[in-house]
Amino acid sequence: MRLSIVCAVLMQSTLSLADEGMWTYNSFPAATVEKLYGFKPSQAWLDDARLATVRLAQGCSGSFVSGQGLVMTNHHCAHHCIEQLSSAKKDYVAQGFYAKTEKDEVKCPELEINQLVEISDVTARVKEATAGKSDQAYSDALKAVMATIEKECATGDELRCDVVSLYHGGLYQLYKYRRYQDVRLVFAPEFASAFFGGDPDNFMFPRYDLDISLLRVYEQGKPAATTHHFSWSKEGAKPGELTFVSGHPGGTSRELTVAQLEYQRDVMLPRQLIKLAELRGLLHEYRHRGPEQARHSKAMLFMVENSFKALRGMHEALLDKELFLAKVKAEAELKKKVDADATKKKLYGGAWAVIEHAQAELKKIREPLVFIEEGDGFKSELFQFARTLVRAADELAKPNDKRLREFGDAALPELKQSLFSTAPIFPELEIAKLSWSLTKLREHLGPDDPFVRQVLGKESPESLAASLVKGTKLANVKLRHRLFDGGKAAIDAATDPMLKLARLVDPTARALRSKFEDEIEAAVNKNSEAIAKARFEILGTSVYPDATFTLRLSFGKVEGWEENGRKIEPLTTLGGAFERHTGKDPFALPKRWLDGKHTLDLETPFNFATTNDIVGGNSGSPVINKDAQVVGLIFDGNIQSLGGEYGFDAKVNRAVAVHSAAILETLDKLYGAKRVVDEIRPLPR
Amino acid sequence: MRLSIVCAVLMQSTLSLADEGMWTYNSFPAATVEKLYGFKPSQAWLDDARLATVRLAQGCSGSFVSGQGLVMTNHHCAHHCIEQLSSAKKDYVAQGFYAKTEKDEVKCPELEINQLVEISDVTARVKEATAGKSDQAYSDALKAVMATIEKECATGDELRCDVVSLYHGGLYQLYKYRRYQDVRLVFAPEFASAFFGGDPDNFMFPRYDLDISLLRVYEQGKPAATTHHFSWSKEGAKPGELTFVSGHPGGTSRELTVAQLEYQRDVMLPRQLIKLAELRGLLHEYRHRGPEQARHSKAMLFMVENSFKALRGMHEALLDKELFLAKVKAEAELKKKVDADATKKKLYGGAWAVIEHAQAELKKIREPLVFIEEGDGFKSELFQFARTLVRAADELAKPNDKRLREFGDAALPELKQSLFSTAPIFPELEIAKLSWSLTKLREHLGPDDPFVRQVLGKESPESLAASLVKGTKLANVKLRHRLFDGGKAAIDAATDPMLKLARLVDPTARALRSKFEDEIEAAVNKNSEAIAKARFEILGTSVYPDATFTLRLSFGKVEGWEENGRKIEPLTTLGGAFERHTGKDPFALPKRWLDGKHTLDLETPFNFATTNDIVGGNSGSPVINKDAQVVGLIFDGNIQSLGGEYGFDAKVNRAVAVHSAAILETLDKLYGAKRVVDEIRPLPR
Repeated sequence: MRLSIVCAVLMQSTLSLADEGMWTYNSFPAATVEKLYGFKPSQAWLDDARLATVRLAQGCSGSFVSGQGLVMTNHHCAHHCIEQLSSAKKDYVAQGFYAKTEKDEVKCPELEINQLVEISDVTARVKEATAGKSDQAYSDALKAVMATIEKECATGDELRCDVVSLYHGGLYQLYKYRRYQDVRLVFAPEFASAFFGGDPDNFMFPRYDLDISLLRVYEQGKPAATTHHFSWSKEGAKPGELTFVSGHPGGTSRELTVAQLEYQRDVMLPRQLIKLAELRGLLHEYRHRGPEQARHSKAMLFMVENSFKALRGMHEALLDKELFLAKVKAEAELKKKVDADATKKKLYGGAWAVIEHAQAELKKIREPLVFIEEGDGFKSELFQFARTLVRAADELAKPNDKRLREFGDAALPELKQSLFSTAPIFPELEIAKLSWSLTKLREHLGPDDPFVRQVLGKESPESLAASLVKGTKLANVKLRHRLFDGGKAAIDAATDPMLKLARLVDPTARALRSKFEDEIEAAVNKNSEAIAKARFEILGTSVYPDATFTLRLSFGKVEGWEENGRKIEPLTTLGGAFERHTGKDPFALPKRWLDGKHTLDLETPFNFATTNDIVGGNSGSPVINKDAQVVGLIFDGNIQSLGGEYGFDAKVNRAVAVHSAAILETLDKLYGAKRVVDEIRPLPR
Repeated sequence: MRLSIVCAVLMQSTLSLADEGMWTYNSFPAATVEKLYGFKPSQAWLDDARLATVRLAQGCSGSFVSGQGLVMTNHHCAHHCIEQLSSAKKDYVAQGFYAKTEKDEVKCPELEINQLVEISDVTARVKEATAGKSDQAYSDALKAVMATIEKECATGDELRCDVVSLYHGGLYQLYKYRRYQDVRLVFAPEFASAFFGGDPDNFMFPRYDLDISLLRVYEQGKPAATTHHFSWSKEGAKPGELTFVSGHPGGTSRELTVAQLEYQRDVMLPRQLIKLAELRGLLHEYRHRGPEQARHSKAMLFMVENSFKALRGMHEALLDKELFLAKVKAEAELKKKVDADATKKKLYGGAWAVIEHAQAELKKIREPLVFIEEGDGFKSELFQFARTLVRAADELAKPNDKRLREFGDAALPELKQSLFSTAPIFPELEIAKLSWSLTKLREHLGPDDPFVRQVLGKESPESLAASLVKGTKLANVKLRHRLFDGGKAAIDAATDPMLKLARLVDPTARALRSKFEDEIEAAVNKNSEAIAKARFEILGTSVYPDATFTLRLSFGKVEGWEENGRKIEPLTTLGGAFERHTGKDPFALPKRWLDGKHTLDLETPFNFATTNDIVGGNSGSPVINKDAQVVGLIFDGNIQSLGGEYGFDAKVNRAVAVHSAAILETLDKLYGAKRVVDEIRPLPR
């Protein structure tokens, strides 16, 4: 795997490789696609696809698949909601969920869906506001102008406006979304079929997963009319067929400097992996407390294992010496070209050193930053409520452009949705998570650290966590409403122990955040901008920006690959799932599948691999053909795709999707979901 | 910390730094000590100290502190035994243990104590046997000659003979030990005082731990007469005083090549850390199953956390770019000198490249090797019994010099001691460990790996582990005796499920071990020898060999250090422990301490730091003064000492010990251990 990633990295400066790239809709290389595949998407095609694609604000992609607001995404993207809607009596994660009628569709307490309706460039306005500034002045000006632009745009709660930075500050664009917060669950299969093969098969292929869920967006209590939606392909993806993936890749690091990559390799990734590994061990064993405890912690365990495997693959990629040397070489070449031109050298030549220094500074404050400000020391939903309430009391009293970004007017609908969520809180899991994270806080900062002493006093992490969770009343959503509405006076008067802790933590946490944003992030942003400009000037604009959880379109084809001389075929069948079934978790198909096996066409394609360039965040993205019809549903990448964080290797990097035919076959024959099958079924054309 | 390690590394080629070095007794730099401290240990002094020092075969150091076989070591070195002797009714880990009379002393089921009685050089004989050979022939010849020498030496079960390799094969020496397998527990304090401060304070200083246990070696049912033993200092260690530490440092990596260090940094350490972190999370949560489960897993949790913290420090040291560049530079200098001399170049010039290639090969087989042969995939005492029985049946039928090393005649007493141990087996913990490790086996080799399929079949790791542990009868020590005595016929006829698994695993495991030993280890050994010779020829013999769990003597003095401009004093007091007491684990002193506080002289020195160069394995080593009197008991190093794996930094690397005065004060006043106090108390001189 890794040898060939090197080639991709080395060739990055020349571009454009077949099938590489997470392209923005407004600079999609339609001509390249035509040259390679004989089809050129028109502007209308692109506009339709963009408007039929959606984003789940919590971190996934999806698509409209009917005119009545029906949204297709992955099971794992809705897993948290499915768990929140479950109870000891009705475990929808284990049993699956299907709303037989519209009125059986149930609201997800925390899901928000966004449809990108407009992109406009605001680079000039942002640059004007930050011109000549550096450090805190730069950081303040940047945040203020972004907040102002966003507020001007977000004229109602149904609009979400984000100023996004592309090419690490090379461009600033205003992304205007239609926001849906009334999102209801329509269908989910059993976890055992959605995630058949479990962690062992995760990021692997061949694969046999029905990783789908169906949601519906509502407006004023009625299914929303969604004019732009994808229709369904009659036969679905075929080997060699041109495929597009429209979605929201979460983040890549292909443009980072060597110093930033070293920070990832030597500091961030090893520490995150160790943290996740320990949490994984804890959560695995936590299930032994009982079936309810197992149910409450299932989504979290899935997330932890999934992140662990993804980060592990990234770390392995960076530990590959050849890959890393290629990055070093590419950077040296770019710098050489910059230094060869006096003007460029003056403007951009110092940028790499500043970023390197910023990484060294970041390393120094990483532990307190991560544990105190970023929440690793206080893993608890109840603490998060407390912090939001404490900060809201301070922030909302300030003018919009002076607030912490997540308290800006444009961000408030999302903040309120999570603060006022009606999802259940599990006190036992809260205590376990908070005990553990307080232990890690003490371990990483040291028992004699003044902040740690202030937090723990004479308590142990376990005793403090138990008394906080048992003592707080913040699980009560009405109380959270009252405290939020009561503003600073209400918060200052409150004696709730979790609020008291959040108040105690806040000055230190805010100081760390300021230090990070004003000294480190500002320097990195400003100098990344400089490098981005240099790269534009030298390489032209025919490159795609690093992923940033903004909408992208990639192209590719249905294709397997070769591994150790063995050919991996691009498609699996429903029959293959039954062959892999052992009866023991995670290789146990649900009873419904075993009982209904005889009704299925076992030759139906189930999962497939494509050469599309995707990354985490693309989960739930539709795979569409040149007629913009759904031929599949992205849910994973192969293990080789994890190195895609740093560079794309067309030979082995593969996206993995559920085949559209398997979706209809199982919805129809196993789940009796006639109502939704009729809603999305391909009409005679 | 790390900056200054660099200096040490850079200076390594010039030597000898004050206080650096884990010296063998037969090449101790007495003249250097005299120059630095005005005292030159005589040969008699050295012989006495050597014979008064002991090794715990399972991985610690200790010393004779009376003429009646009384051994002083750490609590954490005997923790496993103390746990094995405990029960739900009598938890000696929690409550401590004291044998009021000799007949109350209880035998530890698995402890073996060794006293080094003779060292002789066998380099010529070993080199002769391996001359001109490479790969498997080299490996076979080396193992055969070592087995033969050891067998000739070990004329009775009371003798243990190990051919040890020093300077990575530069020298081979025969270490002849007096072996004691009847080792009884005399005294242990409560875990809460032995490990006061727990994991947060581990590898930290200032410190307040009574990390001591007292054992006694028996011969023919009577306390052994131990002519050579240390007497007790009247006042104990004082600031600035010259101190010697005699013990068995487990291993260092100061002479490794850059390729070997890269393997540690990029492969071995990250993977081990991730494994330990996950196991740590699991064991922490396992305690919630109940108080008995917590008791059964306490020693294992301690070991896991201790290893994790130690390896983490090592990894951080290797990730330090300056340290690593210094290693690269030092190697380049040595190679340059080799290449400058045609004869040396021909003999040694290719060694580094061969070792580098071997590391690449090792990386390829590491996962199966570690999981299948080295036991990471089968973490279970019962499986270990099964493997030992299966292998013994094959190995003992072979001539001594053809066997796997641990089945050689010279090694059999140790093997039998652990195979026939009467220590309790905890089935629930066995199932938890085995489930987890089988899950890791599947994760690391993949669910479709033929070996994994062979082992798991249609079972899940959990169901297989449960059926194996519940189905096997190997917890019965009499059955193990019968099977061992029955030889191959008995093993082949057995239908015990754990034995069947061990038989199934063995061919693959043995093949991996052969591949490792014959292709990788042989190449590394042979070429490390070459580099060691080159280093001898160029730098002379005034360097100490890397630690290998063989007896070493280090010198230094009682001294604190400076950290971020703050001076750390070298001694703490008993009173300090009470100040640090919060009442919550791990900062809760036992009731006995709180009740007895008024009886104590709170000014008594408790723990102290010295500049002695030590490493893991030195735990339990006596700290002695120039009169060869005990002034303390090594139990830890500071966090900066963890980088000592790769180089010694005299400025901040500190050993940490319990003060001899605190031992007597607490034995006498808190534990009423008059019998042992009288046995070791300093006599009027």
